[in-house]
Order: sequence, then C-alpha cells, then structure tokens
Amino acid sequence: MSENQTQSFIINRAATSKIENIDFENLPFGSVFTDHMLYCDYKSGEWGTPVIKPYEPLTMDPSSRVFHYGQAIFEGMKAYKDENDDVWLFRPDQNLTRFNKSAVRLAMPEIPEEVFIEGLKQLINIDKAWVKKGKGNSLYLRPFMIATGHGVIAAPSGQYRFMIILSPSKAYYQGDVKVLIAEHYSRAANGGIGAAKAAANYSAQFYPTLLANKQGYQQVIWTDDATHTKLEEAGTMNIFFRINDTLYTAPTSERILDGVTRKSIIDLAKRENITVEVRPVLVDEIIEASKNGSLKEIFGAGTAAVINPITGFSYQDTYYELPRQDNPMALDLKNKLTDIQYKLAEDTFGWTIKI
Amino acid sequence: MSENQTQSFIINRAATSKIENIDFENLPFGSVFTDHMLYCDYKSGEWGTPVIKPYEPLTMDPSSRVFHYGQAIFEGMKAYKDENDDVWLFRPDQNLTRFNKSAVRLAMPEIPEEVFIEGLKQLINIDKAWVKKGKGNSLYLRPFMIATGHGVIAAPSGQYRFMIILSPSKAYYQGDVKVLIAEHYSRAANGGIGAAKAAANYSAQFYPTLLANKQGYQQVIWTDDATHTKLEEAGTMNIFFRINDTLYTAPTSERILDGVTRKSIIDLAKRENITVEVRPVLVDEIIEASKNGSLKEIFGAGTAAVINPITGFSYQDTYYELPRQDNPMALDLKNKLTDIQYKLAEDTFGWTIKI
Ligand SMILES: Cc1ncc(COP(=O)(O)O)c(C=O)c1O
Ligand SMILES: Cc1ncc(COP(=O)(O)O)c(C=O)c1O
Repeated sequence: MSENQTQSFIINRAATSKIENIDFENLPFGSVFTDHMLYCDYKSGEWGTPVIKPYEPLTMDPSSRVFHYGQAIFEGMKAYKDENDDVWLFRPDQNLTRFNKSAVRLAMPEIPEEVFIEGLKQLINIDKAWVKKGKGNSLYLRPFMIATGHGVIAAPSGQYRFMIILSPSKAYYQGDVKVLIAEHYSRAANGGIGAAKAAANYSAQFYPTLLANKQGYQQVIWTDDATHTKLEEAGTMNIFFRINDTLYTAPTSERILDGVTRKSIIDLAKRENITVEVRPVLVDEIIEASKNGSLKEIFGAGTAAVINPITGFSYQDTYYELPRQDNPMALDLKNKLTDIQYKLAEDTFGWTIKI
Repeated sequence: MSENQTQSFIINRAATSKIENIDFENLPFGSVFTDHMLYCDYKSGEWGTPVIKPYEPLTMDPSSRVFHYGQAIFEGMKAYKDENDDVWLFRPDQNLTRFNKSAVRLAMPEIPEEVFIEGLKQLINIDKAWVKKGKGNSLYLRPFMIATGHGVIAAPSGQYRFMIILSPSKAYYQGDVKVLIAEHYSRAANGGIGAAKAAANYSAQFYPTLLANKQGYQQVIWTDDATHTKLEEAGTMNIFFRINDTLYTAPTSERILDGVTRKSIIDLAKRENITVEVRPVLVDEIIEASKNGSLKEIFGAGTAAVINPITGFSYQDTYYELPRQDNPMALDLKNKLTDIQYKLAEDTFGWTIKI
C-alpha cells in the first residue's frame, strides 16, 4: 500500500500492553485477544476511515439489526512467524474474496481490499509481539462485519461495522475425533446461505452438535438436506476421504463453504502425485469402503486445526472404526502445508505474503 | 404473579420521559423505543434478577458470540389499549412457548415464565403512556435473547442476555403487495431452524428479497427447498389461500414458523363456519385455480401487519393478478381479530390478557 493510503488509517496505540499477563502455554482457542483492534464503519453508502485502537467493548443499541436478524459474516485466518521473526499471511486474497461473497449473499456491503488486507497488515504489525515463533503457534485473525443499524424491522441494515480482532493460538489439537453422520438435521440447503461464512450458519449447528456430543461424537458430518446421502462437510472443516490411495472430497456448491485449506490440500496432493477426485461422496460408498477395507482415512481440513484426522464415524447406530495408518496421508499433507505456512519449505505456489 | 415474585425485579425509572418529542402520527415501524427496557442475564447455568431501567446502549465485547455465530432469537408481539385505558396482551403464552422452543433449537437456555410474562407486564405498565388508543395503534413488543459470552470458537455461549424493548406502532399498511414465488432461493430446510424465530433465518432472506424488490415484488413466498413445489410462508407472515370459499394454509413443520396470527385466524374462520384446510398447498394448484377463476384471495398473516392482502403473484416469469373482492375474507377476518384484540368484541376464545 502506498504511503498515501497508509495515512488513511487512524491509529491510536494502547499506552500499555497486556502481553506480560498472558500465559502463552495455556491458550484456550479464541479466548485471549491482543492489545489492539481495527474497526471501520459503513454509513450512507460508504466506508469511513479505518481505525486501529486499543481492544475495547463496543457500544451497541439494543435494536441493532445484528441482534435481531443475524446479519453478520466473518473470516478465520492465521498469521505465522518464521525463524527470522518475519510474519506471514497465508492466501489472504482468498479470504477477502470469500468475505465479499458472503457480504453479497447477506445483503451487506463489500469491504475494500485496502481496508481488509492493509488493515490486517497494519494491525498485525502493531501487535507483532503476540505472534509467537514455533510450529503450531500462530495468531488467529478474525475479520468480521456486523449490522449496526437500529430498528426492529426485518430488512437489511443501512449501517455496518467491519472489525478485525486477533487471538494468539497454540496448535489446535482436538484429540481423537469421532464423528456422527447427519441423518435428520441439516446445515445448509440449496438456495440457502451454506456457502457463505455467515454467523447464521453456526448457531444452527449447535443443538445437533450437542446431541452428537452426548452420544460421544465430537462433531457432525453434514449430509445434503434433501436426501442425506451425500457427505458434505463438518461444522468448521471441509472433509476428505482416502479410499486406497485416492483422496475424495465433495465439490463446492451452494451448500458448502469453499475452504482455503481444502483447496490448498487439493493442490498440494496433486503436486505430490496423489489422485484427488472432487465429486459427490456418498454415505453408502464410504460404508462399503469401510467394510471392504479400502477406506484408509478420513480427515477434516480448516484453518483452525489445519488437518484433523478422524478415527471413526457412526451412521444409523453403527460405528465404523478407521484403521490405524503407519504413514497417514493426513499427517504428511499437514506437515507439507504447515512447512509452507511457517516458511520451512519453499512456497512453490506463492501462497505466503509477508507483512 | 405473587407480591413476592414481583419484588424480584430491580426497577430503575428514567428521570424524564422522551414521549413529548415523539410524533405518534409518523412512526416508521420498529424505529422508536419507549423510555425503559428490561434485561436479565444468564450466567453459570442460571438466570439473574431481571432489571428494568432506562433504554440505553449495551456494552458488548467484540468477541461476543452473537456477532460471530448468530446465536440469537426473538419474539414479536403487541399490546393494545382499549377504550377504558386498559392495556391488553394477545396470547402471550403462545409467544413464550415459541420463544423457548426457539431457545432449545439454538442451544440457548429457556426463559422462565416469570421473567418473560411478568417482565412484559411490569415493563409495559411503566411505559403505559406509550400505548395509544384507537384501532391500529399498538405497542410492538420485542423480547429477544443474545449470546453474550466471549470467544471466537464455534460453540454455544455460556452467557446470555434476555431483553425486552418496546416500540409504539401505527397500523402497518404496506400498500399493494405483489409477491414472487421462490424458484431457486430457500428460507428453510428439513432438519434446519426454519421453525425457530431465530435471527439467523432473517438475514438469509434479505438478498433474495432485494432481488424480488428489484423486479417489483414486495415479498417472496418461500417454497420447500427440496422441490420448490409447496407454498410455505412469506418472510414474516404465514400465508393463506382462498379457493372458492375454502381457506388453505400449509401445515406447520420444521420449515415453517408456527404463527400466532395463523392459528388464531384458523380458529376464527372455523367459528365463522369457513372451511379451513391445513395441508400442503402446491404452486401448481394455485396457478390452476388462478387460471380457472376459483382462486379468490391470498393473504399473509402475522403480528406486525395482522392480515396483509396480496394483489398478485409471479411464478416462472408469469404474473397472476388476483380478482378484486367486494367483501374480502381477509378484511372480514382482520376486523374480527382486531376487534378481539382491542376489546371491541367479546373474546370468546380467552385470548386477551389484561396487564
Ligand atoms: C463450515 C466451514 N467449513 C469449512 C471451513 C474451512 O475453511 P478454511 O479452510 O478456509 O478455514 C470452515 C472455516 O473454518 C467452516 O466454517
Ligand atoms: C417467518 C415468519 N412467519 C410467520 C410469522 C407470523 O407469526 P406471528 O403471527 O406469530 O406474528 C412471523 C412473525 O412475525 C415470521 O417471522
């Protein structure tokens, strides 16, 4: 960004930092925030000047549209510090594009690249000390937009606030993940908002996920709502199936979030000469493959966990355990991807952007 | 409620009232609020003491779950003043039941009757001067609940705030309402949250509704997402079809909001010896009925507008105009219902509750 544009941020630094009080070895995901935040308000059809200031509470009218009509979208990204103390973003252009796609679907204004990308860079730079070195450590980045206009009438707001908040995070290890394949509940439908990273998609999953938790499953694998025969994605991860040595994953659609990790895994796997088939994956074929031993792995892919191996799944009250692998593809792909993110391997794809 | 329970409200009255500054003849729906609001916080598994205090902004952490995951539900109700200056609620038990059904589906805590019903009564009583007499005038009541817990992790919040805000309203007249029948977009799916009055259901409709607006239609009539052959409901209204002298309306389901106006209209119509058939209504049969002249009326039913006649609908680029009626059933039922609400007719159903 040119000097001129840089000047268009209002920057108000915190007098002191909270960083000394943070136990970086014990960081529950998404619960600790850095010293600063960014916001930018949209009013009368235009975006104002982005402001970086100390992290602090917002003042919101009780009739703000976000409270009543759920008009809110977000992104989830990470910043990584390399051995030279440089900080890197991973494919931020993909998150910007997806954010603005979400904005359109939720009838919200698109955010300019200068605010989103340059805002991230400026903000992270100020809170650079919060990005810890070492594989697994990262700064989780949460750009989001909420409808701040007043009035309890079910129509799009005229005012919005875009914000970025930052949360230091450790490697996200969930332990054994057993999943339940959805037979009744659904996450998204054709003609709906499943492809948007809309706040509204997440609260809808909480109750069915709690029911799965009670049965001993950590997550739900969503199926298509109309027939419940196609395996779509998990709550915050896209999903891959390894049958023999081929990887299968569902195509993106109106019902599926177009994950940045998913598309990166597909590219990486292809580079490694792994066959990847992007096509609808049927519950039936996965059960069949599990029974005949050709189903080797299932894993989730998303920014928070990178790749999360799944140890087994339940469908129609039958539990299918996955075989243990000596050299799981999940782990290999995870290492290759994180090596790129932490600048430990050459970034042949041009995915990493220095701050 | 017993004296004892009444004492459990903390009441903090405004020093002065804003009421003198309000132009009650010009009230855009849902945009003006009374002097007081109610809130009640949920924490560590229990509800605290409800507080009534001057209407004022909330202080919210930027990581509050409602902003990121859309965990929010609401209700819409009205209070009516009769000729003796008594104020009445209409079937508030129905709204409480629906609110708690929404809460369960959104993985939120249920609200006790003492807080919801008694809270409404206490709050309305304090702001009684804001309920204006005369048919059409009312006080719109907006109970809602938002997830106030902190942390950007996609899981149910541990903290919630229940609130009630009040907005004086005039008769809600929308003018001619032409509707577009949804062929691609969808509002709800089986296994989804369509039956809950969840904030998340509304933002999802804004974009398709804007597209309809651009084509000259004020609202969308949603069809079932799987086949788009069944007529379900409008954005904030259930929908009735009059073919000859029979009324048809879709059954409630996981995809449809169980409207209080809808069920009251069904009961009223039956009392008037109108045949009401509650069964799936197909797009095809309505088009056929329009062509052969047996389709007499379509109207929406919901708290805000009570009954809203529809003048025509579009499907697959063809516009079907409805015939003008000398004595529309919509108007007759609306009058009968509002007469009960304003205590101008005997309430044989026991629907009205005095504050
Ligand atoms: C529903 C859903 N699917 C998949 C993903 C993975 O997307 P990404 O790899 O871009 O983080 C996410 C985001 O975390 C998500 O919320
Ligand atoms: C989606 C939807 N359908 C129908 C209705 C009508 O319900 P009620 O008659 O209880 O207001 C509403 C509420 O306003 C609604 O939001």
